Amino acid sequence: MSSKKVTSITPKSENLTQWYTDVCVKAELMDYATTKGFIIYRPDGYALWESIKDYFDKRIKALGVRNVYLPSLIPMSLLKKEADLIAGFAPECAVITKGGNKELAEPMVVRPTSETMFCDHFKNIVHSYNDLPVKYNQWCSVVRWEKTTRPFLRGAEFLWQEGHCLFETENEAREFTLTMLREYNMIGSELLAIPFVMGAKPSSEKFAGAEDTYTIEAMMPDGQALQSGTSHYLGQGFTKAYDIKFQGRDNKLDNPYYISWGVSTRLLGALIMVHGDDEGLVLPPRVAPTQAVIVPIRMDSDPNVLKVARELESQLKEAGVRVYLDDSNKTPGWKFAQYEMKGVPLRIEVGPKDIANGVVSFTKRYDSSKSTLPIENLAKTIPALLEEIQAGMYQKALTFLNEHIIECHNYEEVKEVITSGKGFAKMMVCSKNEAELETKLKSELNATPRVMPFDQRPFQSTDTVTGEEGADTVIYFARAY
Amino acid sequence: MSSKKVTSITPKSENLTQWYTDVCVKAELMDYATTKGFIIYRPDGYALWESIKDYFDKRIKALGVRNVYLPSLIPMSLLKKEADLIAGFAPECAVITKGGNKELAEPMVVRPTSETMFCDHFKNIVHSYNDLPVKYNQWCSVVRWEKTTRPFLRGAEFLWQEGHCLFETENEAREFTLTMLREYNMIGSELLAIPFVMGAKPSSEKFAGAEDTYTIEAMMPDGQALQSGTSHYLGQGFTKAYDIKFQGRDNKLDNPYYISWGVSTRLLGALIMVHGDDEGLVLPPRVAPTQAVIVPIRMDSDPNVLKVARELESQLKEAGVRVYLDDSNKTPGWKFAQYEMKGVPLRIEVGPKDIANGVVSFTKRYDSSKSTLPIENLAKTIPALLEEIQAGMYQKALTFLNEHIIECHNYEEVKEVITSGKGFAKMMVCSKNEAELETKLKSELNATPRVMPFDQRPFQSTDTVTGEEGADTVIYFARAY
Repeated sequence: MSSKKVTSITPKSENLTQWYTDVCVKAELMDYATTKGFIIYRPDGYALWESIKDYFDKRIKALGVRNVYLPSLIPMSLLKKEADLIAGFAPECAVITKGGNKELAEPMVVRPTSETMFCDHFKNIVHSYNDLPVKYNQWCSVVRWEKTTRPFLRGAEFLWQEGHCLFETENEAREFTLTMLREYNMIGSELLAIPFVMGAKPSSEKFAGAEDTYTIEAMMPDGQALQSGTSHYLGQGFTKAYDIKFQGRDNKLDNPYYISWGVSTRLLGALIMVHGDDEGLVLPPRVAPTQAVIVPIRMDSDPNVLKVARELESQLKEAGVRVYLDDSNKTPGWKFAQYEMKGVPLRIEVGPKDIANGVVSFTKRYDSSKSTLPIENLAKTIPALLEEIQAGMYQKALTFLNEHIIECHNYEEVKEVITSGKGFAKMMVCSKNEAELETKLKSELNATPRVMPFDQRPFQSTDTVTGEEGADTVIYFARAY
Repeated sequence: MSSKKVTSITPKSENLTQWYTDVCVKAELMDYATTKGFIIYRPDGYALWESIKDYFDKRIKALGVRNVYLPSLIPMSLLKKEADLIAGFAPECAVITKGGNKELAEPMVVRPTSETMFCDHFKNIVHSYNDLPVKYNQWCSVVRWEKTTRPFLRGAEFLWQEGHCLFETENEAREFTLTMLREYNMIGSELLAIPFVMGAKPSSEKFAGAEDTYTIEAMMPDGQALQSGTSHYLGQGFTKAYDIKFQGRDNKLDNPYYISWGVSTRLLGALIMVHGDDEGLVLPPRVAPTQAVIVPIRMDSDPNVLKVARELESQLKEAGVRVYLDDSNKTPGWKFAQYEMKGVPLRIEVGPKDIANGVVSFTKRYDSSKSTLPIENLAKTIPALLEEIQAGMYQKALTFLNEHIIECHNYEEVKEVITSGKGFAKMMVCSKNEAELETKLKSELNATPRVMPFDQRPFQSTDTVTGEEGADTVIYFARAY
């Protein structure tokens, strides 16, 4: 950990935007690069992405997905083969016109997403139903020339994984699209302690070229939505455009069904936003690079303190806890503030008085609660305490999410929820008038339809917001990052 | 594994170049991309890189190195700050002139290497000796517009790691430069079963901007050298050019000492070349995605065969062996050829006769030797057998390396070694005439000085190749990939 001084940050409640930037920079997760719109993923930030990668990579391999790596540069002509995709991404492309001191005959773009490259490769390797399914994934970075950027949430370059799979039948393809969405949801529930709303995107918010897009949406502290991962059912549009054909069981040629799915370093933005507080970052234990920090108290006047602290450190390491003993000559107060800023889930204090009482004191980062534990058996009680913290953080975030999904029965209620930052406006919508409603809410409230949640139970609605009968669909509207 | 038919490949001894390409494609390690000069890293190829990554990432983390991620696009002006670097890399750059539908005010290049970006970041985070050392590493891809490309050995885009470290003193920096070289050597000796020659590069072969470049060189089957990893001592050149300063223990401002080090997917090229044979790829067990394949014999006529094979599979899995049971209805002969092509280190046959005798038959891929093992206790004997194969492969490659480093005492001997592909010409060179000798050997034999090996023991030399007295340096000359 750095030896930099802890400096104060803007309180979260006062100015969320400034607070967010302060945490990103001062918890040393990132730094701004000279390349405008780009960031440096610093060790403590990159380590969070590595945790997500490790967790997710094991999960997808167990599902039979294999990793590959395809070129980062895409010839313009290849990108143009699928009309919707190029329309969606062209405005954001970085274009290469020279290579090796020569003008290129054909410009290339730095990959904004790789559907085109995957399809071009699939054409060469898929010929028969025996070659299906193909389940590939790529860990890489993508470049999108965004106008407004914010660390992790929106940037000119971000790290992600992109899954690309082909199936023999529509059913299999649709099923795996949803399997991957559930896997994304588990990154939240099992690792990041973030509850998501799972569901489908309305037409207007689908991925360029997708028949259906599914999403996990997180609730931000200001009631806005953060799209945190998407899984797309692409049907046969791409496989027809790129001429991928296989001989089926009936001996006829057919185009396979294609899906793609991705999560990115945007998840780090969600993590910071959902859990952080006025003191800085707050990390759930399962994803934290350092799960517990040991701070010795009065170690200069009592040599036994450091001895006990070191024993505890090695016990915890052996028990698999990612523990750090700060035996530097900084004051305990400095250390407290430093590891609070860095979001370390658990602080353990070892001092002469506690030792005499046969205990250690601890403080949970996420709710500031303090208590003691018997010094015996900490190799068992600390891991259990970390799991308790993980569960507590998820529960806290879940309560916040549920309290901020607000059933609305008329336009005034929607307006109130959106403009006062209360959360997602949960609405019963009449699907045949949905487009019209979208236009109104977008222009008047800057709110968009984030998700049609899988939980489509209708709710008590005296009227629909458009004032019509026949409301048949639950949609969450919100402002979005 | 694929269900593709095994097709024959060009014999290694007949045409090494064609054989190499055949193995790369037919063992399904890579495919050619539409983007000229770029390749697709297919699952079986990428898995080899993942093995190297996993092994090396753990090693460097234990040395205190932390992973980061810096932008893939570099503004031209930033690249130009270090004169040697830009001179070395400009001819190979991919240049971006448009972003987001607009001409860029300043062109950018896709990273060919990241010294410039790291220095630009270091300037912001290093201020005092307390901030040193900085030990960073980045896993990423780089783009270099190469004219002639070969899968894994030389390409427009390759995967690599680049380490970038700053130190307070020259001594520490030089020491870590060599530590990393030894780590690279261990990737060979511990994982890939490839012996390297370790040493320093002569001036003419140093990295652009380096004071000293150290290298690991592998011996290819045609006697040529493959530079397989480099570690550079960069001194203060970069840190001065990029204005990185720290307050020292003496309160004076100083520039830190910089080193960088990298290995790439070129190691896959070395792996294929060193171990492969006429039947295809040959993988050492520690790096092989599949270490052992079980092929059932006469499984249709005797149902007991598949039962025993399945039991064996689960036993081996439990013992940590990466095992695959091919119970498809392909013929045993097809399976033999398939897994030979794929380089699986060990083939285990389970048939009725063997079962009756209480044994299984096995064949080692690398030397085609066959034998049997008692069916009892295979969870112990198979892992031991795999380690035996690993050691045997390393020993075989080491013998080949040693036999192909030829002491030369005059120009005729050097010429004979180089032109007949016998290996590295080991020469005693007079350092003050070394440049002149290089020119001669380069123009007449297309040989370059690959390495001044750490083992500098002088050998019996009646005269030096330049015909002068005072030979003081051992250098290996060779043609190189």
